[in-house]
Amino acid sequence: MVITIKSNADKKQFENLLNWIESVGLQINLSEGENYTVVGLVGDTSLVDISLLRSLDIVDSIVRIQEPYKSANRKFHPEDSIIDVGGHKFGGNHFQIIAGPCSIESYDQVLAIAKAVKQAGATILRGGAFKPRSSPYSFQGLGIEGLKMLVEAKRQTGLPIITELMSENFLPYFDDVDIIQIGARNMQNFDLLKAVGKTRKPILLKRGLANTIEEWLMSAEYIMAGGNSQIILCERGIRTFEPYTRNTLDLSAIPILKEKTHLPVIVDPSHASGLSRLVKPLSLASVGAGADGLIIEVHNNPECALCDGAQSLRPEQFDDLVKAVDIMLPIVNKERDKE
Amino acid sequence: MVITIKSNADKKQFENLLNWIESVGLQINLSEGENYTVVGLVGDTSLVDISLLRSLDIVDSIVRIQEPYKSANRKFHPEDSIIDVGGHKFGGNHFQIIAGPCSIESYDQVLAIAKAVKQAGATILRGGAFKPRSSPYSFQGLGIEGLKMLVEAKRQTGLPIITELMSENFLPYFDDVDIIQIGARNMQNFDLLKAVGKTRKPILLKRGLANTIEEWLMSAEYIMAGGNSQIILCERGIRTFEPYTRNTLDLSAIPILKEKTHLPVIVDPSHASGLSRLVKPLSLASVGAGADGLIIEVHNNPECALCDGAQSLRPEQFDDLVKAVDIMLPIVNKERDKE
Amino acid sequence: MVITIKSNADKKQFENLLNWIESVGLQINLSEGENYTVVGLVGDTSLVDISLLRSLDIVDSIVRIQEPYKSANRKFHPEDSIIDVGGHKFGGNHFQIIAGPCSIESYDQVLAIAKAVKQAGATILRGGAFKPRSSPYSFQGLGIEGLKMLVEAKRQTGLPIITELMSENFLPYFDDVDIIQIGARNMQNFDLLKAVGKTRKPILLKRGLANTIEEWLMSAEYIMAGGNSQIILCERGIRTFEPYTRNTLDLSAIPILKEKTHLPVIVDPSHASGLSRLVKPLSLASVGAGADGLIIEVHNNPECALCDGAQSLRPEQFDDLVKAVDIMLPIVNKERDKE
Amino acid sequence: MVITIKSNADKKQFENLLNWIESVGLQINLSEGENYTVVGLVGDTSLVDISLLRSLDIVDSIVRIQEPYKSANRKFHPEDSIIDVGGHKFGGNHFQIIAGPCSIESYDQVLAIAKAVKQAGATILRGGAFKPRSSPYSFQGLGIEGLKMLVEAKRQTGLPIITELMSENFLPYFDDVDIIQIGARNMQNFDLLKAVGKTRKPILLKRGLANTIEEWLMSAEYIMAGGNSQIILCERGIRTFEPYTRNTLDLSAIPILKEKTHLPVIVDPSHASGLSRLVKPLSLASVGAGADGLIIEVHNNPECALCDGAQSLRPEQFDDLVKAVDIMLPIVNKERDKE
Repeated sequence: MVITIKSNADKKQFENLLNWIESVGLQINLSEGENYTVVGLVGDTSLVDISLLRSLDIVDSIVRIQEPYKSANRKFHPEDSIIDVGGHKFGGNHFQIIAGPCSIESYDQVLAIAKAVKQAGATILRGGAFKPRSSPYSFQGLGIEGLKMLVEAKRQTGLPIITELMSENFLPYFDDVDIIQIGARNMQNFDLLKAVGKTRKPILLKRGLANTIEEWLMSAEYIMAGGNSQIILCERGIRTFEPYTRNTLDLSAIPILKEKTHLPVIVDPSHASGLSRLVKPLSLASVGAGADGLIIEVHNNPECALCDGAQSLRPEQFDDLVKAVDIMLPIVNKERDKE
Repeated sequence: MVITIKSNADKKQFENLLNWIESVGLQINLSEGENYTVVGLVGDTSLVDISLLRSLDIVDSIVRIQEPYKSANRKFHPEDSIIDVGGHKFGGNHFQIIAGPCSIESYDQVLAIAKAVKQAGATILRGGAFKPRSSPYSFQGLGIEGLKMLVEAKRQTGLPIITELMSENFLPYFDDVDIIQIGARNMQNFDLLKAVGKTRKPILLKRGLANTIEEWLMSAEYIMAGGNSQIILCERGIRTFEPYTRNTLDLSAIPILKEKTHLPVIVDPSHASGLSRLVKPLSLASVGAGADGLIIEVHNNPECALCDGAQSLRPEQFDDLVKAVDIMLPIVNKERDKE
Repeated sequence: MVITIKSNADKKQFENLLNWIESVGLQINLSEGENYTVVGLVGDTSLVDISLLRSLDIVDSIVRIQEPYKSANRKFHPEDSIIDVGGHKFGGNHFQIIAGPCSIESYDQVLAIAKAVKQAGATILRGGAFKPRSSPYSFQGLGIEGLKMLVEAKRQTGLPIITELMSENFLPYFDDVDIIQIGARNMQNFDLLKAVGKTRKPILLKRGLANTIEEWLMSAEYIMAGGNSQIILCERGIRTFEPYTRNTLDLSAIPILKEKTHLPVIVDPSHASGLSRLVKPLSLASVGAGADGLIIEVHNNPECALCDGAQSLRPEQFDDLVKAVDIMLPIVNKERDKE
Repeated sequence: MVITIKSNADKKQFENLLNWIESVGLQINLSEGENYTVVGLVGDTSLVDISLLRSLDIVDSIVRIQEPYKSANRKFHPEDSIIDVGGHKFGGNHFQIIAGPCSIESYDQVLAIAKAVKQAGATILRGGAFKPRSSPYSFQGLGIEGLKMLVEAKRQTGLPIITELMSENFLPYFDDVDIIQIGARNMQNFDLLKAVGKTRKPILLKRGLANTIEEWLMSAEYIMAGGNSQIILCERGIRTFEPYTRNTLDLSAIPILKEKTHLPVIVDPSHASGLSRLVKPLSLASVGAGADGLIIEVHNNPECALCDGAQSLRPEQFDDLVKAVDIMLPIVNKERDKE
């Protein structure tokens, strides 16, 4: 950490700062310039509250040189982490496709989709039982009943399952769930992160709509600090000024994350754009950027005119997408995991 | 709600859409243009899932004319809501100043600050017991012990108190708390919103860092849908590309909210900028913009060199701020509530 | 265009608005709801100033149904535009790679790079003579002298050339330039757009850092309104809150543009991220998203330690990139143009 | 400037970097940590290209300690700059109100508004002759004819005038203009900045919609580098995700600028929000934040129903605004300049 002190800094305050730095066990490396004094802090600075220091009157600027995340940091764990979900691996040269309906509506629906996506090549089944909706008047999901349908579809098809957890109070119902999803709106729900940190299940951690890559890794760090290091990151778009897409998918984040962390990272192109016709181009783009997998919404309601064209793909569109991905994977040295 | 249908839309899909609209009890008003067909929906459209409709292949664009919030909507409640907290009123021509430490550190600290801010004119005491921190390695607050100290300071000074709730599991400890604060990171933690909607206590609902005004009002609507309409909104800055300030305080939101909703709205200038020297100018700016109050961090640690200059004000700076606010209030037809 | 009028609107003002609408030759389609009156405008609304209407007191909201761009609109020109640059085509199933140095430093430098990138498969040579720099103290480019070196490299290698124009006053020097580049910072320099609209040369129009896709197409419309419809769009990243990358490359814009316009669109992955190690993954991602080409920075200074690792690739890295792109192109039904 | 070198950095490249630093006349201050080596650069680093250094493979991060702007920097010019416009002063404890129509439409219109705003207390007359419009089909202003009308209104009323310059080719017509305005879209039109840097007239430099405070000061530096230090900065809103306002007015920028620079800064509340009913609250907020003045749109078309309610105020609304500002100014130690 490097702290720049203003040239006209109060001496007493400067002395207090230096004493405080030493009191927390850090070494000091002073360098005086014409307009500034630069204080280098040597040692473990991950415990230092950078925003407190930044707000001191005598401080001009401050920069953290050592990243604040440790367990998630590739520097201290150079090899890719491999997360195993029922024999299906995330990370390294593995590539997984998760697919399923946005919301679970009925057992017949989820089973039909599960069979269709398994047939097309998906290795894990997704389905929403608890739905985060911005309006209290919107359908909030089937809840525990939906979860039971998803578990039953797992039994029938053999596909491991992933679903979103919105409150730690529902954790007891997640015993048969293979990956617990933490949604974008809960990326900094720290009590929830602590709760899943105590489990020993793989966690899919979605990026918050307005969260930096560093904050995202700090949320992973929360889970790892609890003893659970089975984390899969999921980019799903950030909020920008552009109104034509619901969110702006940040694919630069993929190669950046590959440098910063050993954790696998997948992409959710369905939610990022909100438009089914963008799912295929954004999926191929994700593969090109180096993602470790995709999570795709698929529906199966030929009778439901309203669902057609939504952000979900029909099974035959999903099939077409998987085939295109398969051709691309060798270019990026990945191999799709197959049943 | 107005839906624009593409000129080359599939007729079967269009028919299905019209049937669906009628099936949910809405009336249709069709108007055919050269390049588009425009479908007007008349009736209560707050139950319609706009993002589903937007994603249909045949839909070019869609606009909600009726706002999706009802209880929070000034259209259906033209008078200002007045929220009463222990005799201190928010809304109308009332103006309140909430003050206190960022984190509760000890009973002596919180009591000393409570006395100082009461003396200067604050009518409500703030203090953090449960702290949302982006790093798992940072101090997480004193928790229940801190809460007890805050309640004791309330007993000693007579000041009502406000503190943040991060998980519904701690609600049983909030009996003596006068205002429950929902933090920016939990603005869309819908389970938490539902939980406080079941209480009958005033809620301070902070705006999320990346949330629109409409989403903010929808979160208020969640609480109101549970039967609790005592909500105070709190603007605290949004996330932008500008790095010199921690967040960009959006003061245009104040007059916009005054049009859209009857709920009172206050400003937190301490957290928005993260710099104590910006607290006074941003407080005066907030008054100018029409805010119903301020929530200000004050510390009282003359011995702690590190705290000085941080985002918290010293009591004498707070005193100076209150005096300046008092001179301004008549210009905006407000009156500060006094003990 | 659909205008929503408030329920309590002043009748005289409403009448005035209706009269004005008819006076500009538009038809009116009125529909009265409980809380609003909806006014549909039928006819050519591209001349209507939407921000003026939006700001009227009686107007609640307004939505433009017909896009404000005509010449660039795919609706009125369903076929892909093909832009021919010295026999090299942009658009349709063509794919072009433009490459060259960021700044022209000397004739030897630009010639050596030109030969290297031509060898690797580039079909057009880029090189900056006039450089937009945020600091007046930074190197501003070699100007006209640099332009002459670039033209000479064109003569030697046969590669068409592209370079940036920052002021219409330098247009007379651009006779031998094959594509005129308008930089991101000048995307809304309307006088410059008008000036290049009068030329009959292909224009590469970069997206502004904070400009929406619609504003970008309106800037293309400025050039087309002048009679020049040879426009190639270039996505190069937008400004967001994420600090790890210089800009956030918006690849969702590619499939969106393919729907909205018939103009070709390429991607500049070098400037978007500012990091050479991101150029390859973002290039492959761009191909996956459906781009019509790439513009890549390449340097050739083995002696310049400082240049290595910058946003420019070395020739051998560029060669490797072209090979990977070539394998991918068939998946997206594109073919790279070859000499 | 502090450069952090990765622990596994190539030694040859590191040596090359150190040699290069010394070759440009800077001193080196090395400090080796466990995971990083920190290189401090002492001397005038304003000539160093930070983005080039940041992109080097061996560099982990880099921070500029000395701001890249010198002439605009308060460190080297602690006193407020006072800009004198025909006897009316910007900066220090002076406060100016500029007012006038958005576009000049006729001589009668501009003269009538000029008289009205002078009567209400405006000291400088604004009026657009050349209009930056995002659509080529919108009214582009009366141009040179409009400029002549504005100059004539100046002769009649004695008010100094300000108008926007969009291309240096029109500079010869600006002899009688007292303040040259550079619009938000041209904030980084560097050729235009250089051109006005050669004049000796006050320049109003608006902030770009997506530009940081530092970039804004660097654009001021461009003008100052040309020898013209009479610059007035103007905050007018930045682009964010919030759709209810056209732009988000960044009032935190005011106190920040007061620290960073000695140049005066005013606010344009009319363009920021695009809504006339927000002009008064945002004007009072600007005064509270410490602005040195306001620039306000006023219209005078009782016959034009369409103009009423737009972002322009009517003269009586402007009068009311000036009165409210006058009551507030003593609180912020400012005095409004009067004729």
